[in-house]
Amino acid sequence: MEEPTSKKGAKKAEAKAKKEAEKARKAAEREAAAASSSAAASAEDLAKENYGDIKTAPKSSSVEYVPLRELGEKHIGQVIELQAWIQNSRMQGAKMAFVELREEGNWAIQGVVAANAEGTPVSKQMVKWIGGLKLESFVQVEATVQKPLDPVKSCKVSEYELHLKKVYLIAAAPETLGLGLATANRVVGSLAEQEEMADPNVEGLTITEGAPVASLATHLNNPAMHKRAAVSQAIADIRIEVEDLFCEYLKQRRFKKFHPPALIGAASEGGANVFKLPYFDTEAYLAQSPQFYKQFEIAGGRKRVYCVSPVFRAENSNTPRHMTEFIGLDLEMEIQKHYNEVLYMLEGVLLYIFRGLAERCREEIDLIRSVYPSEEFQLPEPGKEVRLTFAEGQSLLRAEGPPEFAEVKDEEDMSTPQEKALGALIKKKFNTDFYVLDKFPVDARPFYAMPDPENPKVTNAYDFFMRGQEILSGGQRLHLPAELEAHIRFKGLDPNQKGIKEYVDAFRSVGVPPHGGGGIGLDRVVAFYLNLPTVHLVSDYVRTPKRLSP
Amino acid sequence: MEEPTSKKGAKKAEAKAKKEAEKARKAAEREAAAASSSAAASAEDLAKENYGDIKTAPKSSSVEYVPLRELGEKHIGQVIELQAWIQNSRMQGAKMAFVELREEGNWAIQGVVAANAEGTPVSKQMVKWIGGLKLESFVQVEATVQKPLDPVKSCKVSEYELHLKKVYLIAAAPETLGLGLATANRVVGSLAEQEEMADPNVEGLTITEGAPVASLATHLNNPAMHKRAAVSQAIADIRIEVEDLFCEYLKQRRFKKFHPPALIGAASEGGANVFKLPYFDTEAYLAQSPQFYKQFEIAGGRKRVYCVSPVFRAENSNTPRHMTEFIGLDLEMEIQKHYNEVLYMLEGVLLYIFRGLAERCREEIDLIRSVYPSEEFQLPEPGKEVRLTFAEGQSLLRAEGPPEFAEVKDEEDMSTPQEKALGALIKKKFNTDFYVLDKFPVDARPFYAMPDPENPKVTNAYDFFMRGQEILSGGQRLHLPAELEAHIRFKGLDPNQKGIKEYVDAFRSVGVPPHGGGGIGLDRVVAFYLNLPTVHLVSDYVRTPKRLSP
Repeated sequence: MEEPTSKKGAKKAEAKAKKEAEKARKAAEREAAAASSSAAASAEDLAKENYGDIKTAPKSSSVEYVPLRELGEKHIGQVIELQAWIQNSRMQGAKMAFVELREEGNWAIQGVVAANAEGTPVSKQMVKWIGGLKLESFVQVEATVQKPLDPVKSCKVSEYELHLKKVYLIAAAPETLGLGLATANRVVGSLAEQEEMADPNVEGLTITEGAPVASLATHLNNPAMHKRAAVSQAIADIRIEVEDLFCEYLKQRRFKKFHPPALIGAASEGGANVFKLPYFDTEAYLAQSPQFYKQFEIAGGRKRVYCVSPVFRAENSNTPRHMTEFIGLDLEMEIQKHYNEVLYMLEGVLLYIFRGLAERCREEIDLIRSVYPSEEFQLPEPGKEVRLTFAEGQSLLRAEGPPEFAEVKDEEDMSTPQEKALGALIKKKFNTDFYVLDKFPVDARPFYAMPDPENPKVTNAYDFFMRGQEILSGGQRLHLPAELEAHIRFKGLDPNQKGIKEYVDAFRSVGVPPHGGGGIGLDRVVAFYLNLPTVHLVSDYVRTPKRLSP
Repeated sequence: MEEPTSKKGAKKAEAKAKKEAEKARKAAEREAAAASSSAAASAEDLAKENYGDIKTAPKSSSVEYVPLRELGEKHIGQVIELQAWIQNSRMQGAKMAFVELREEGNWAIQGVVAANAEGTPVSKQMVKWIGGLKLESFVQVEATVQKPLDPVKSCKVSEYELHLKKVYLIAAAPETLGLGLATANRVVGSLAEQEEMADPNVEGLTITEGAPVASLATHLNNPAMHKRAAVSQAIADIRIEVEDLFCEYLKQRRFKKFHPPALIGAASEGGANVFKLPYFDTEAYLAQSPQFYKQFEIAGGRKRVYCVSPVFRAENSNTPRHMTEFIGLDLEMEIQKHYNEVLYMLEGVLLYIFRGLAERCREEIDLIRSVYPSEEFQLPEPGKEVRLTFAEGQSLLRAEGPPEFAEVKDEEDMSTPQEKALGALIKKKFNTDFYVLDKFPVDARPFYAMPDPENPKVTNAYDFFMRGQEILSGGQRLHLPAELEAHIRFKGLDPNQKGIKEYVDAFRSVGVPPHGGGGIGLDRVVAFYLNLPTVHLVSDYVRTPKRLSP
């Protein structure tokens, strides 16, 4: 959808601005004209039509456009057209210039131009102009594909080079970049910042000393350059793949996609950490999860549903693991015989994601590891998935964990340091970075969690972990209105309060099958899989208490 | 993601509530026990273990679970297990009962039970209990598959029936439903409401007289029953398919998915129709479109991007075409030679969606038409796509349109009635419900629209239409910061104001390629394709100025 055109107001300001705008437009045109004529300043420049502003380019070109990823032996000796960014430009003497031309996906190639070379006329002025092109400008080139004398190590396309015949500037970059490409491609943060960012509970973060680095804030404040870095594109590509694998697996199993709303009429659980906004003559809230809506879908006759949707947390947490807006991958399904059907489905989709990434994104993973080193994510062997009860986890911590956890209790929720310590124990014992803790105590779960029929102190609910960090929360839900009401009261809430009433009504209004589900934070899956220092490197547009922009 | 557990506060209330909850829980248990024992009241009931509350069901069953969609000849004579909703239940005499059992996707089958039939013991009490099951209750059954004497016309599975051996109630529906299934499956709205809902510009709405219907509000206030209707599920399935086809087409063409933020730091165009909310010590807004973010992706080095994301409009419009939150399908791409590359891509993806729906969703379309009749959506023949300039459209209206449009002007935007009249003319002339109007006048477009280099009064921007209604807005965008600033001023805005500055900065910070794109409203595509009376029948959870719930 386009931004709506504001048709009302500002009419006067518009009229006044029109004149200014006209002036500015003409000034801009004069500037452009000057730039283009200065490039071709000298009257004896025989090459003046072969370079300069794009406006000097011939109207139509019959030369074939070849993306760099498709360049092959058959193109040697041929003239091709290309649009690309200037990733490097330098003079060699007065008559020769080298550039590096880059396309999406870090596809870069070396371009060479020499005055008085054979073929199309190339002037000294043209060479100088090319050698002086600002980094990250966007150009259109016509060039002959050739084999270089030696492979060009600095470019992904190392086996070919381009002998430039024509170069036109489509969009100029400024004199100085807010963030250079080389820096954008390095680890974020100064040593101090990296240490601060490093979650004390996450092992294996590499603190890099040496080449200049920029702070995370500098990266995020320069989105165009941050995103142009190969490492950023690789992370974004992996994020896409995680979402695709999630949807793929579930679609194959007859899950139906739906879109839960972001705007909701009531803060469902007392209003903590919920964004609130004026909504016509009432108030609205931003959804903290699609939980109720997934269950409405089940009540509405779907056997299995999933969604990919933004969720919002108004929590003033400024840590590398928190964001105020993020993408949730959620599913919910009817249970036929046992709630383990849900647990196995969630385990299945995550294993499918992990195996899929290792298969489909080898190149991206390796590239990211060259910047953010991490150990390969260890999976359990098929059939040897690690599933402990919460009590077994606590017992393991008491028996073999650090002394401070010698007294942990089965009915109390785990702290992050406990989770982390348990993760290390499980890694040592079972050699896996991925495992499930089942049967969480009632006190650690929301009111809609189904108690274990054999032990009402615990629930049919579980967390999943990656490298000792919680990545998924889920379980079986209460599906009978009387039980639901009882549990709502037990948690000190009122089943008839706004937001909760309409939830319980769904179960009162029809017969709803037994069901369960779970939810994953998309950015966390990527960050934990790659052991990145912060989820802020994964989100397309980071939102934190201190960041709403760009 | 789960709803976060509220750990703070309400401790006292919780303690107090615990007792009440315990009481309620016990009462619920007593009730359940009473229900189950009254079902098996009579001491001589030989079948008492074969029906009643699910708690009386044997713990494990070795009977195969067969979903109705998979039922086939090979199952005849076999005993299967099934979980389903009671869609109908009735007694025939004192010894026989009929039920209809339904699964997702309108798969329903007739079940029969007769006292003293051969095989498993069936008592009169059991038959009576089954015949009295409340509609839309959820049950588990064990039954023998048989051929009925005559095909069962009222069920999608008409060639088989189930001879019930065991029936257990998993979740009971209430005595009276807020909305019955038959009504949920009919057109929404009384005659008066249908007329009010009918956009006067939309032809072909069928106003239905006869069987009882429920208002749109009743439908939406009873989400579980509204969603259980076959017509609702068919609409939801088509909506899923539209999104899938959109993503499929673009992925095949190397488009990369991303997620634009919903929370943004500034209202980009003056603040009209934007939701605003307190955000820690500042304010945030809800995105009206992903426009700027799509362009940031292009500036960030992606050649082609798309997104599927919620967008928000704080517009107090209470019409069948408006919602305050809806899902946008958006794309943006680098232009190599001509902005028509974008136009053709958008046309391509929409044609792919329309052809895909006709191919993949025949059954759903026919089912929806049986409730909401509409003519087949007419597509142009391949190679004969209808693309008029805005001026050609106005000229056609002047020459052949209704008299009130005899004076329409080339530089003024079209009204909805004009669009509609033009749609009718084009349908008559070219026999297509889908066409493009290109080269919109500058005044009708936002500041970022690229003017036509040959005629600065118009832009390289277009709208797409379905049945005379705008479905897509798009075009080429300005990519040079100086031109962008001039146009921002021309529209009476300040290029350095919050929200706009960071947008222009993206173009100042690097060289950005020429690019363009467009956006589609997901719900509108479905509603216009099927000629539904309102987009509110398409959205999973409708949000309007007056509706925030469920």
